[in-house]
Amino acid sequence: MINKLCVIGVGLIGGSLARDLKRLGAVREVVGCSRNPENLQKALDLGVIDSFSTDVAQAAQGADMVVLAVPLEAMQGIFESLQGSLAESAVVTDVGSSKCAVIKAVDTVFSGTPAWFVPGHPIAGAENSGVEAAVDGLFVDHRVILTPIAETGAGALQRVRGMWQQVGAEIIEMEPHHHDEVLAATSHLPHMLAYTLVDVLGRMQDRVEIFRYAAGGFRDFTRIASSDPRMWHDVCLANREAMIGVLEHFAEDLDQLIEAVRAGDGEYLFGVFTRAKAFRDRFAQNGPAASGSR
Amino acid sequence: MINKLCVIGVGLIGGSLARDLKRLGAVREVVGCSRNPENLQKALDLGVIDSFSTDVAQAAQGADMVVLAVPLEAMQGIFESLQGSLAESAVVTDVGSSKCAVIKAVDTVFSGTPAWFVPGHPIAGAENSGVEAAVDGLFVDHRVILTPIAETGAGALQRVRGMWQQVGAEIIEMEPHHHDEVLAATSHLPHMLAYTLVDVLGRMQDRVEIFRYAAGGFRDFTRIASSDPRMWHDVCLANREAMIGVLEHFAEDLDQLIEAVRAGDGEYLFGVFTRAKAFRDRFAQNGPAASGSR
Repeated sequence: MINKLCVIGVGLIGGSLARDLKRLGAVREVVGCSRNPENLQKALDLGVIDSFSTDVAQAAQGADMVVLAVPLEAMQGIFESLQGSLAESAVVTDVGSSKCAVIKAVDTVFSGTPAWFVPGHPIAGAENSGVEAAVDGLFVDHRVILTPIAETGAGALQRVRGMWQQVGAEIIEMEPHHHDEVLAATSHLPHMLAYTLVDVLGRMQDRVEIFRYAAGGFRDFTRIASSDPRMWHDVCLANREAMIGVLEHFAEDLDQLIEAVRAGDGEYLFGVFTRAKAFRDRFAQNGPAASGSR
Repeated sequence: MINKLCVIGVGLIGGSLARDLKRLGAVREVVGCSRNPENLQKALDLGVIDSFSTDVAQAAQGADMVVLAVPLEAMQGIFESLQGSLAESAVVTDVGSSKCAVIKAVDTVFSGTPAWFVPGHPIAGAENSGVEAAVDGLFVDHRVILTPIAETGAGALQRVRGMWQQVGAEIIEMEPHHHDEVLAATSHLPHMLAYTLVDVLGRMQDRVEIFRYAAGGFRDFTRIASSDPRMWHDVCLANREAMIGVLEHFAEDLDQLIEAVRAGDGEYLFGVFTRAKAFRDRFAQNGPAASGSR
């Protein structure tokens, strides 16, 4: 049981977590914190939080669990504001999609990673954002990756695991650097492709018509291009190194495919399509549910 | 009312069309044709066709409507087999996703485009294929693009329009070359990106793990990579010129994005993501239904 939960950044992820913990009776009190008082009032009206403050130090006062659900670029500032205002029993975790960057931020502020900090990342985004998008059961059967390092306290880790298990998530532990590479490949790269494709098509002269003739497959393919631009701006800057690796790998393979189309190299093309279909079909049998059916 | 419909290639598209026309009482008799007798027997068992032949000339005999629903590479051979065996009243149409290539094939065989041929393309694919995937109402509220040229007979065009209207499609007419460019952008390019992405990830050493951590958005994004490799092989070869144009345009923009990630150019990245989100959100309000809800 969490006594006082402080959620810093009450959007889709922070809001859904608070909502579920309250609904399940796993938390006594939720304090919301954000720079935007209108958003906090909305969260209060929706019953997602019990009170709020726009001041980080004040919001975190007396909390035994603090969750940072803010864009990656805001993390370091939050850690600075938390200095000296955390309760002795407090555990802090985050939901950022690059783990090395968040660990570096906490390291910078506290001159080393404190035992009470547990880096985390729930794999449950959506193209929607904001507390209005928060839903019950967002994390059920979804994975939450925790990336503890040597300095992380076992007790703190156990309490963060417990929180995510309460809301139905499957917990996985991974080395931070490895997390960043895996996510660059499975999440950041697809987002870059969808954004680039929609931007390319949108800037074509006959764009009205272009989109008019797009079929259902196009809608599925480009759904993630509706994701929050600010969040993805931050991801690109924070996870730069891992992203460059997979982006270049992809660009090289795409160049080879373009060469094959130009040369009419049907054998090469058939090989790529056949391998990809086999991988995708296997993934479809074992992978997560579609976002639509979540 | 169609008296005798001959469907050459009884897969998802040909099968669904025959099924719907029969269900709606818009056809008296359906003859199926394919190189594969097992597939034809399956179509017969499913009630999609009334009889079949593996011989094109025989299947088309006496038919007043002949629909070519075979891979693009097979079109020219079918036209050759049809020579001299079509009824005088026969109208022929196709469902190929590159129109210039099909018109070139019919031109080659008949030394000019016959008045009885109407090039067509229903925008209603799916990652599923085969007659087992045929469903009722596949074309309802979907667009069918017809690309008649100067030689196309007005009566033939009217009869093909009528057939597609019967099954609930919205008919659009377009110049063949323009069709090929629009489809290269909205359909062929996304398929190339999805295939390449899944192939890149699948060939990574830790692929089992990579796919394990993929979220719902990844599933939506890569759904089209489960499409039929043979069909897409043919599309690449048939629509080469239009595809090269958009593929190169995309590759250039992707290179710029990679450069921006490398340089930490947040302003550039935020610009791309914001534009793309605006285009995608507008499309989502006006575009077609998701393939899943079809």
